[in-house]
Amino acid sequence: MAGNSFGHIFKLTSFGESHGIAIGGVIDGCPSNVEIDLDKIQLDLDRRKPGQSKITTDRNEEDKVEFISGIFEGKTLGTPIAFLIKNKEQKSDDYDKLKGVFRPSHADFTYQNKFGIRDHRGGGRSSARETAVRVVAGAIAKQILSGIGISIHAYVSKINSVELTKSYFEIDANLIDSNIVRCPDDEVARKMISLIEQAKSEGDSLGGIITCFAKGVPVGLGEPVFDRLNADLAKAMMSINAVKGFELGSGFGSVNMKGSEHNDEFLPGGKTKTNFSGGIQGGISNGEDIYFNVAFKPVASIKKMQNTIDQNDNQVKLEVEGRHDPCVVPRAVPIVEAMSALVILDHYLRNQSSRMG
Amino acid sequence: MAGNSFGHIFKLTSFGESHGIAIGGVIDGCPSNVEIDLDKIQLDLDRRKPGQSKITTDRNEEDKVEFISGIFEGKTLGTPIAFLIKNKEQKSDDYDKLKGVFRPSHADFTYQNKFGIRDHRGGGRSSARETAVRVVAGAIAKQILSGIGISIHAYVSKINSVELTKSYFEIDANLIDSNIVRCPDDEVARKMISLIEQAKSEGDSLGGIITCFAKGVPVGLGEPVFDRLNADLAKAMMSINAVKGFELGSGFGSVNMKGSEHNDEFLPGGKTKTNFSGGIQGGISNGEDIYFNVAFKPVASIKKMQNTIDQNDNQVKLEVEGRHDPCVVPRAVPIVEAMSALVILDHYLRNQSSRMG
Amino acid sequence: MAGNSFGHIFKLTSFGESHGIAIGGVIDGCPSNVEIDLDKIQLDLDRRKPGQSKITTDRNEEDKVEFISGIFEGKTLGTPIAFLIKNKEQKSDDYDKLKGVFRPSHADFTYQNKFGIRDHRGGGRSSARETAVRVVAGAIAKQILSGIGISIHAYVSKINSVELTKSYFEIDANLIDSNIVRCPDDEVARKMISLIEQAKSEGDSLGGIITCFAKGVPVGLGEPVFDRLNADLAKAMMSINAVKGFELGSGFGSVNMKGSEHNDEFLPGGKTKTNFSGGIQGGISNGEDIYFNVAFKPVASIKKMQNTIDQNDNQVKLEVEGRHDPCVVPRAVPIVEAMSALVILDHYLRNQSSRMG
Amino acid sequence: MAGNSFGHIFKLTSFGESHGIAIGGVIDGCPSNVEIDLDKIQLDLDRRKPGQSKITTDRNEEDKVEFISGIFEGKTLGTPIAFLIKNKEQKSDDYDKLKGVFRPSHADFTYQNKFGIRDHRGGGRSSARETAVRVVAGAIAKQILSGIGISIHAYVSKINSVELTKSYFEIDANLIDSNIVRCPDDEVARKMISLIEQAKSEGDSLGGIITCFAKGVPVGLGEPVFDRLNADLAKAMMSINAVKGFELGSGFGSVNMKGSEHNDEFLPGGKTKTNFSGGIQGGISNGEDIYFNVAFKPVASIKKMQNTIDQNDNQVKLEVEGRHDPCVVPRAVPIVEAMSALVILDHYLRNQSSRMG
Repeated sequence: MAGNSFGHIFKLTSFGESHGIAIGGVIDGCPSNVEIDLDKIQLDLDRRKPGQSKITTDRNEEDKVEFISGIFEGKTLGTPIAFLIKNKEQKSDDYDKLKGVFRPSHADFTYQNKFGIRDHRGGGRSSARETAVRVVAGAIAKQILSGIGISIHAYVSKINSVELTKSYFEIDANLIDSNIVRCPDDEVARKMISLIEQAKSEGDSLGGIITCFAKGVPVGLGEPVFDRLNADLAKAMMSINAVKGFELGSGFGSVNMKGSEHNDEFLPGGKTKTNFSGGIQGGISNGEDIYFNVAFKPVASIKKMQNTIDQNDNQVKLEVEGRHDPCVVPRAVPIVEAMSALVILDHYLRNQSSRMG
Repeated sequence: MAGNSFGHIFKLTSFGESHGIAIGGVIDGCPSNVEIDLDKIQLDLDRRKPGQSKITTDRNEEDKVEFISGIFEGKTLGTPIAFLIKNKEQKSDDYDKLKGVFRPSHADFTYQNKFGIRDHRGGGRSSARETAVRVVAGAIAKQILSGIGISIHAYVSKINSVELTKSYFEIDANLIDSNIVRCPDDEVARKMISLIEQAKSEGDSLGGIITCFAKGVPVGLGEPVFDRLNADLAKAMMSINAVKGFELGSGFGSVNMKGSEHNDEFLPGGKTKTNFSGGIQGGISNGEDIYFNVAFKPVASIKKMQNTIDQNDNQVKLEVEGRHDPCVVPRAVPIVEAMSALVILDHYLRNQSSRMG
Repeated sequence: MAGNSFGHIFKLTSFGESHGIAIGGVIDGCPSNVEIDLDKIQLDLDRRKPGQSKITTDRNEEDKVEFISGIFEGKTLGTPIAFLIKNKEQKSDDYDKLKGVFRPSHADFTYQNKFGIRDHRGGGRSSARETAVRVVAGAIAKQILSGIGISIHAYVSKINSVELTKSYFEIDANLIDSNIVRCPDDEVARKMISLIEQAKSEGDSLGGIITCFAKGVPVGLGEPVFDRLNADLAKAMMSINAVKGFELGSGFGSVNMKGSEHNDEFLPGGKTKTNFSGGIQGGISNGEDIYFNVAFKPVASIKKMQNTIDQNDNQVKLEVEGRHDPCVVPRAVPIVEAMSALVILDHYLRNQSSRMG
Repeated sequence: MAGNSFGHIFKLTSFGESHGIAIGGVIDGCPSNVEIDLDKIQLDLDRRKPGQSKITTDRNEEDKVEFISGIFEGKTLGTPIAFLIKNKEQKSDDYDKLKGVFRPSHADFTYQNKFGIRDHRGGGRSSARETAVRVVAGAIAKQILSGIGISIHAYVSKINSVELTKSYFEIDANLIDSNIVRCPDDEVARKMISLIEQAKSEGDSLGGIITCFAKGVPVGLGEPVFDRLNADLAKAMMSINAVKGFELGSGFGSVNMKGSEHNDEFLPGGKTKTNFSGGIQGGISNGEDIYFNVAFKPVASIKKMQNTIDQNDNQVKLEVEGRHDPCVVPRAVPIVEAMSALVILDHYLRNQSSRMG
């Protein structure tokens, strides 16, 4: 039983290999009669695309989304929304050299062993190119959420050792896209960029942390005991390539606190004095801001020579010549936003049937 | 659309309020013809039960599981396995005082606002008592996994500031239950216990970290791109009461590494030299040990006086008199194991149909 | 992947073997804050129970439903509603004789071969006793539907060769339960009863047709292209023991009509002049009455001597001594109503998220 | 919660409006490493396409399927198989006249009222054009089933009053496609064709019955108590445009039989002497042939003048000028086969996890 669908009511099914004809998706369950601004979708795709700055891969892919169904005269029909993003022709020669090689910490080995076959070209289905599909679906979700007063923003809060020490409520969301590393503090951003440039020159890669926050989420989203809003956010984030960790609100830091410090005192009106809970209590949104951190490992694609094996179990030296990102974290910002939007909209729609009247 | 079921093939549906007649569950999709040792299930329930030691709540609940269906002459029938754990009669007077009060960082407020009604007695459905159901289902899953060579162990690796610095592969799993805090190092355990006793005496609560590892998981479990094994583990853990964070393998620490350090070199035979990946690559198990950390906040139930509001939005002082755990982390060890077992068995069964022949 | 759950939002999971401790169910997704009249549920159970009249089995089972969770002070909590119906102690001696025998047209053979094990006592999970669970869940659904103006009625329209020639809109629903065969026409009912009594005396069994109609269903229920309201009704009916056929509206009779005769002309206000469509067009309810027929075969349990085989593939003579129904159709009336209610309520709730605003 | 996906393990998601850019589908869960013969898929598409003979619509659409993903070097990858069938440019003028009109017994009215918007061109999503997607997915399923010894055939057994009186086991499956009406008896076929030609000349339409049978289905497919093989077949068939009824094995005819006549006696080896059960007992295949009938109403598109209303509730006269099928039943044969194949393959894969070992 495969796993290429996400969501229960607003449900995205993703398809496509990185070097096939196209990647794409189908959204089933998008509410009807909603106006969709296609330009805004393209904008998010552009935030994710390769080649957008000196700290990303030099590959310059123009990712254009084409809608096949489900939108009519600018509005959603309530029928499935299908869309394609064509893949550019790639020199498959580049990949034929790697055909039988298992790249370290990539998915070549696991796909080959799970399925007994794989499309070796550029990672095939396991390529992070697949996340462009999520960005399209998430951009639609963000527009619908925006219509009900919910906003979602993500930004880079750490690259390797360089950390933004401000909290999410101390930053200006308008500054996120003001620099190429998507850290809303110019000084910290400069340090991050410099670190990434150094890694690029070494043929190495760096990881980082993305912080995401949602404002305006009404009380009541989340379905205990298993489909808690936090549980579905965690799953969404951990389903993104290269993600190794997730923490909500106080997160791992909560371990060092006492209950008397950590409890969020209720104030009249139902707001809380502090928000260590991260906007979710008992798996259900409580009306406060939702915020969380997502840890990205340094990506596996590096230029440095590595030891590995091939499909015949021979030891081989691997030196990858392709153009890869020294750090994917800045490009992952719209992906984190997109997955957050998918989760929150799906739970918004799920909650429509929780009460009668 | 509610969320009280977990898993796709081995699917647990959980039910019950903490102070109703009983809690319980139904497992649909348990393979037939498997011998089940009921005593082993009870053993895990006993590891979770309240009142088991001086560092847990003093409430002494004897949680006995009763099977209603699906097991015949000691074997699974392939039909739904239903079971009940009766609730002990509780003095509801204890709870009537709290009837209209929203306890800080509890789910009283969110349940009331989501559903417009709640069973206020002891948290009702939001009580961690519900996790006993998971322990029963997980104990069955662990038995089936054991039959195919997969073992799962969890232990306490941190309580507040006291941390076990050994890695999971340096500890002796047989020592986990040798002390009441379930930390497999006696000296560290003593420090943890002392810390918890102090918090208890203060009427306060502490958080901690549980580390879990699975051995013998075959290559190939996990369903990209969304139902990755790591994504489903994250969701499983984040669905447990009081959990605030999850990290797989190198986790948040990976952020500080470079790709050249983090990549797991393949050795002949397909094993890897290091295992920063935590046994999962591209969302699919690679045959190495799977290991991860789960962060628990200090629980919200404390004896200290707190400020809060009631359902009529009046400010009130709250002083809880019930007997609560100063630290639930030791009792959560079997819950983490159980949820891990549910995820891994479900993915084992999902993988049965991934290839023909 | 097992199949003991029904519905997507209002979801029933059924469990239990006919001679185990109990049968029962869990409803996840029942909207909160709805008053439930438990007596009405019992009433429907009584309409299904064995031994209720001279034309049913002589077994006298008092099926009492006991609610475990999800209902608090008479109202639904929005949490899972679990319930049990205890099984009466049965002389298992009766069944030990049949232990290894495959009864013709029963599910003994298929269960044994699918699962490699079975509870042979009274059919175990394959017994129609399981449908009592559906009646309970359906009775809850009927109450909720009633609150939004939807009524559902079923009745016996044919027993073997005796047929009620009136259409569903010509009968008086109040008369359905006025006789033991549940045919709302006394003269036809008498003939049916006489036919069944004769079959009983011969140790044989009879089939029949149940007609069901729903009034007050709003326009818009049903989810094309696969989860059409008619498709889900068909599945629901075909999932009932002994059902062999389903037809909506004009059904098989439509084959003999021309399009110009069959088309339902729209009148101002959106009503239609005729209703050959049976209240559903393009898989979506159109506001007209929904009506359909369900064909039940003569049940497989008969007293007459039969040839068959046992588990060791030996030919054996089978003479069943138990007390069985000569005709289950009258007792199946509340089951048909229950399954209809589950489908319609589930689609009502599904439709809550089909539009924004 | 929308309903454009079918199946649980071999899961088809369908998309597309009849006059948009394309229709298409995504199959998630197709087992990997299976060779696919693309020509055979096109063959089934050609059996469904319009304009194939004098008794179908004169519209000549060349339906070509284009695969986007999931197949690599002729084999399935285990990743989602996405495909498109482009729509030919249609004169939208034809449809603008009908823009606001609700055609009788079509889905215009229900779509408009459910979604508040619709693509009026040619029925949009409600058009039977959508079934071409099912034929593609079903053709893949048939190939996989063929590899495990399962064959599926459907044919026309009745058109209006002309009926093939032979049973499914008396016909020669090779003759099904030997005539344009797909009835494997030339004399009966001639009468059917003549009847359809007459209806065409009158601008009217006819219904009919398709009989389908599957051979080689192993014992054990079907998941009680709800996802019985027969229940899922019924749902599959009732989800096809214009279908009004379904019956398995003895079907509605069983009502006239006694249990002693209807029971299928077991013979040594587990075969049965008769097969009134239609190859399914207790919801599970028993190894005998599976066979069933599907009733199609006369399609709603006729040339004759009709009375109806428009969106503003005005009475209007409707005279459709497009080229429509006088009888869709012959073209529906591959659709019935396709949906049967989807059900049986899905259950085959579901059954992989029903037992351990």
